[in-house]
Amino acid sequence: MTIDTARMVQMANAIRALSMDAVQAANSGHPGMPMGMADAATVLWSEYLRHDPAAPNWADRDRFVLSAGHGSMLIYALLHLSGYERPTIDDIRNFRQLGSPCAGHPENFLLDGVECTTGPLGQGLAMAVGMAIAERHLNAVFSDRLVDHRTWVIAGDGCLMEGINHEAIGLAGHLKLGRMNVLWDDNRITIDGDTDLSTSEDIKARYEATGWHVTSCDGHDFADIRRALDEALADERPSLIACRTVIGKGAPNKQGGHNVHGAPLGADEIAAAREYLGWDAEPFTVPDAILADWRSTAESGKVAHAEWRQRLEADSAARAAFEKHMAGVGNLASPALEGYIRDLAANPKTVATRKASEMALGPLTEKLPQLIGGSADLTGSNNTKTASTAPFSADDYSGRYLYYGIREFGMAAAMNGMALHGGVAPYGGTFLIFSDYCRNAIRLSALQQINVTYVLTHDSIGLGEDGPTHQPIEQVMSLRLIPNLNVYRPCDTIETAECWALALEAPTTPAVLALSRQNLPQLRGEGDADWSAARNRSAKGAYRLKAADADRKVVLVATGSEVEVAMACAAGLEEQGIGADVVSMPCMELFAQQDAAYRADVLPADALKVSIEAGVTQGWERFVGVDGLTIGIDRFGASAPAGDLYAKFGITAEAIVPQIINKLNG
Amino acid sequence: MTIDTARMVQMANAIRALSMDAVQAANSGHPGMPMGMADAATVLWSEYLRHDPAAPNWADRDRFVLSAGHGSMLIYALLHLSGYERPTIDDIRNFRQLGSPCAGHPENFLLDGVECTTGPLGQGLAMAVGMAIAERHLNAVFSDRLVDHRTWVIAGDGCLMEGINHEAIGLAGHLKLGRMNVLWDDNRITIDGDTDLSTSEDIKARYEATGWHVTSCDGHDFADIRRALDEALADERPSLIACRTVIGKGAPNKQGGHNVHGAPLGADEIAAAREYLGWDAEPFTVPDAILADWRSTAESGKVAHAEWRQRLEADSAARAAFEKHMAGVGNLASPALEGYIRDLAANPKTVATRKASEMALGPLTEKLPQLIGGSADLTGSNNTKTASTAPFSADDYSGRYLYYGIREFGMAAAMNGMALHGGVAPYGGTFLIFSDYCRNAIRLSALQQINVTYVLTHDSIGLGEDGPTHQPIEQVMSLRLIPNLNVYRPCDTIETAECWALALEAPTTPAVLALSRQNLPQLRGEGDADWSAARNRSAKGAYRLKAADADRKVVLVATGSEVEVAMACAAGLEEQGIGADVVSMPCMELFAQQDAAYRADVLPADALKVSIEAGVTQGWERFVGVDGLTIGIDRFGASAPAGDLYAKFGITAEAIVPQIINKLNG
Repeated sequence: MTIDTARMVQMANAIRALSMDAVQAANSGHPGMPMGMADAATVLWSEYLRHDPAAPNWADRDRFVLSAGHGSMLIYALLHLSGYERPTIDDIRNFRQLGSPCAGHPENFLLDGVECTTGPLGQGLAMAVGMAIAERHLNAVFSDRLVDHRTWVIAGDGCLMEGINHEAIGLAGHLKLGRMNVLWDDNRITIDGDTDLSTSEDIKARYEATGWHVTSCDGHDFADIRRALDEALADERPSLIACRTVIGKGAPNKQGGHNVHGAPLGADEIAAAREYLGWDAEPFTVPDAILADWRSTAESGKVAHAEWRQRLEADSAARAAFEKHMAGVGNLASPALEGYIRDLAANPKTVATRKASEMALGPLTEKLPQLIGGSADLTGSNNTKTASTAPFSADDYSGRYLYYGIREFGMAAAMNGMALHGGVAPYGGTFLIFSDYCRNAIRLSALQQINVTYVLTHDSIGLGEDGPTHQPIEQVMSLRLIPNLNVYRPCDTIETAECWALALEAPTTPAVLALSRQNLPQLRGEGDADWSAARNRSAKGAYRLKAADADRKVVLVATGSEVEVAMACAAGLEEQGIGADVVSMPCMELFAQQDAAYRADVLPADALKVSIEAGVTQGWERFVGVDGLTIGIDRFGASAPAGDLYAKFGITAEAIVPQIINKLNG
Repeated sequence: MTIDTARMVQMANAIRALSMDAVQAANSGHPGMPMGMADAATVLWSEYLRHDPAAPNWADRDRFVLSAGHGSMLIYALLHLSGYERPTIDDIRNFRQLGSPCAGHPENFLLDGVECTTGPLGQGLAMAVGMAIAERHLNAVFSDRLVDHRTWVIAGDGCLMEGINHEAIGLAGHLKLGRMNVLWDDNRITIDGDTDLSTSEDIKARYEATGWHVTSCDGHDFADIRRALDEALADERPSLIACRTVIGKGAPNKQGGHNVHGAPLGADEIAAAREYLGWDAEPFTVPDAILADWRSTAESGKVAHAEWRQRLEADSAARAAFEKHMAGVGNLASPALEGYIRDLAANPKTVATRKASEMALGPLTEKLPQLIGGSADLTGSNNTKTASTAPFSADDYSGRYLYYGIREFGMAAAMNGMALHGGVAPYGGTFLIFSDYCRNAIRLSALQQINVTYVLTHDSIGLGEDGPTHQPIEQVMSLRLIPNLNVYRPCDTIETAECWALALEAPTTPAVLALSRQNLPQLRGEGDADWSAARNRSAKGAYRLKAADADRKVVLVATGSEVEVAMACAAGLEEQGIGADVVSMPCMELFAQQDAAYRADVLPADALKVSIEAGVTQGWERFVGVDGLTIGIDRFGASAPAGDLYAKFGITAEAIVPQIINKLNG
């Protein structure tokens, strides 16, 4: 059903009016993009996007990503006009105010229909790549009958100029994600001025070079927009649709200039725009006829949803399989690991924790079909590939292993998109140092409250010869500072498996696993012969691995590869009659959440507390106090074999024990 | 002078032999790239690169960047063979061992001739863009007579696949940096396998789309390499030279495969390679004739250097100007600010610290011609442009302001390259939150011991409505964890100027200035009427801004916008008869470097210490102890006006004073 052009104009103007009025009321925000893209968005949402406002989480809906998240009023207007329960007109009236779901940038956790949090430029489009990957994978598993939808993106020049765009479109082009379509708001304006101030790129040629179909349209001509979208649908490649627009279209004196990008139009210009657009309605009022036209556009999606539900219900076995799969990992990671861990208890293994991670991933990937792994070109180093995970490629989307290429940020954002899509549980690897390259995507995993697991290996100077550019020093502690992110640094095979279980069983919290390059002895095993989720000692974040033999004077707290060092220190102390506990702290964040009694039991007030971690020390005072000792490395590393570096930086029992004794005597 | 082909083959094989032998001896490293690019590098270094091994820091030398830093043996071999004092053959023998300048990845601080530290992929090429910018700028200022050199890069597929490559080449193409030439080691291999495992991109087309000249050659055919390099020299655009190579060329059984990338060849394969290459010499031995050929190639650079020195010495006024400029900022920032700060003392200003930064940059950019500013498309928000800094553009390289575009990582790396080049002092702005996008380049500023100033505005929830994606929470503290980086968070106009002086006068330490979006009262002024460098109170990192009126019970320590809050808390406490100092701590790192007496005076043991900072609290225990109070925000922010957010998160005197009183009473 096509609505005639005059009415379409009014539908688009409803977006413009809501956007300019909401920004004005908030006295902050970005009217330029919603007004410029109102026409293209109206065509997309009313005629192409398959969605059901009454069922915003319908699994087979099209995904829509507003990558240019600063233009948030566009999606708020679209959701409201299309008939989503929220945002209400009052929500929009409270745009950017405390408590309104209409936040400055769209937040997935505030509104259904906002598929992902956007604003950090480039990441929306890159998350959309992940959504399109998830769609193709689930399609391969469950067929067109149950999974067959598109991923739509509106992106601006900023999204295209960011480095992550190169990574994202390279991946999408290579994987031939033809059901992904990007509408580029080609308004030739950035915050600083005209785009030609900072770029001369032929964007269309770049996309074509990366395996994309590219077309253009007049972003203010409904027929031309339809023509371009139809062309995109017909092409098997992912599509870039360059929508030539005038930023702030409708504000007669300001449109087309960079001042309309990120500031209210002002009362005078809004009055002028009302006249220019022929929009008589009061602020935050959409005339009934226009609202009715908008609401009518949801019909086709409602029908599609009903038909899909019929198909789902027609085959109860397929339905059960689908629903089980879409329900995610749940608490099934621990049972998947039980036998494996019990075996380890009986047969200890001295391996690097990156290898221990691979070993744990064996049963996990075998038993949990949602797990989709990958690495940013470090498969053999991150140990992320297992026998159960065949490559995911343009030739075979049923695979569960992604060769992401040398694209850390693109990988992380794609994983966010996969997790947001649902039905898949992504994990991916790179070196811990390169968390720096994808840090903001890790932050967005945490902010968006999704489960993504970062397998970050080579986690300290223990990687040795590659030197300071590759040796994490501040990374572990600085990742711990990201809210709602659990950073796990396990010390041996069993802890690694425990941390994997915890990481996967936290649906709203992402995880980092910081893993060693170098071999580590298995320190656990005793008491783990009947391991189960309830006996996951890492679950409290830290625990007493070894109790003092003699009267306890010292508590050594360590993580990862330094737990071995702490054990050696304890042995050295006890040789001298100084009782020392060793506490392994695989997850500082989980420990901090325990009650005071548990924390005081593990880290008692009456002992000298010593932290040992081959990284920066600041932050450890929280646990060992300013009267404790913080053993670590507060400078960059060096290039040498790992053992030499541990000696050089004093992370050895030989270097630490005398300091402890001095402290006790001081 | 051209050396005949048979001898050139031997020169290249010398690189191959040293590389495979050094990696073997170290039992780690990357032989594939040096062996594959040995032929192209031999042509480049012996016939094109203008350098003088006897004067490695000659200002007008060509710059050479091994962006594919893992192939570090290539540059070590080239430096040694060309006749640089270091590395010696013993240095190479100790490749990757503790204390050797031949580290796993090339480090600028270990060897002359290593222009920058590389290894983190993509950044070498992006730093080279900065070097090429610096060259063009200094050329515009000092003419061809004194500055007229090229920037050469060897990059691998990883460098080209990383997102930063898009940003870097976009900037270089837009700025028409025609004296930059990139030799791409087109070996079609990545760590995980063939490049077609993860990419289908037409790289040449992408570079062409970005304004680059592109040519190709057989990377093992000297004549063809020369032809391609000549073509690059003749073109006015930056050039990409695709050198089609066989990775590990010379290892007969392993060449061309991904296993030769990052592991020793093994004794058998090395023996086979010796036979295949006809290389009879013992490990770490280069036959005299081959070494003589190599050493002879430095002649033309020696002559060029001598001619340049003649030109320099021919005009003593020009020489003095040039040498003064190249000497850098030195200690001249403080004198440049004296009058400005003294004025502020008399005429206080309530402005945002981002505005205060702009005000300080006025006299700084006016008086220090080395300063080159810029912003990643947030000029009006970062307040980075001044009247003295005209745009740097392809039409006018004399300008001192760069519109970097929406390219944070590219900007940061370019600034590193500019600083490494010398003669310019770069500063650049973005939002503090987007330090996440360029974090590893900030780290490389610190690791490389160079002066770069990051102007990071909108530094807390105080930015208000843009919401959690834009509100730094963990950024300030996590940047503090980077070694050799000073993070400044000034509280008012005068501190902002003081921090600018400190930032610019630290030649081997980069700086972050974390600046507010919101207005802040001027708290300083008293005692600043005769301000000078010696009276820079920020220089000790923290100082008592206000002494307790009554008997001191509490010390409030705050940074940036929260110093105002601390002052309000102190007033509230003193109303109740509780004496409270207020300590402003604009730079935690500098304070930590002060002697114990000063630290104990500022943060005395006998007072309750309370930190107030609108960010994560972990890390503050170091200064306020576990018995102190850490007021901050340990969750993501929200979208609302700034005042509402400060109230919501309890960063107000009303919320804090009762907690302090409770603690005192507890």
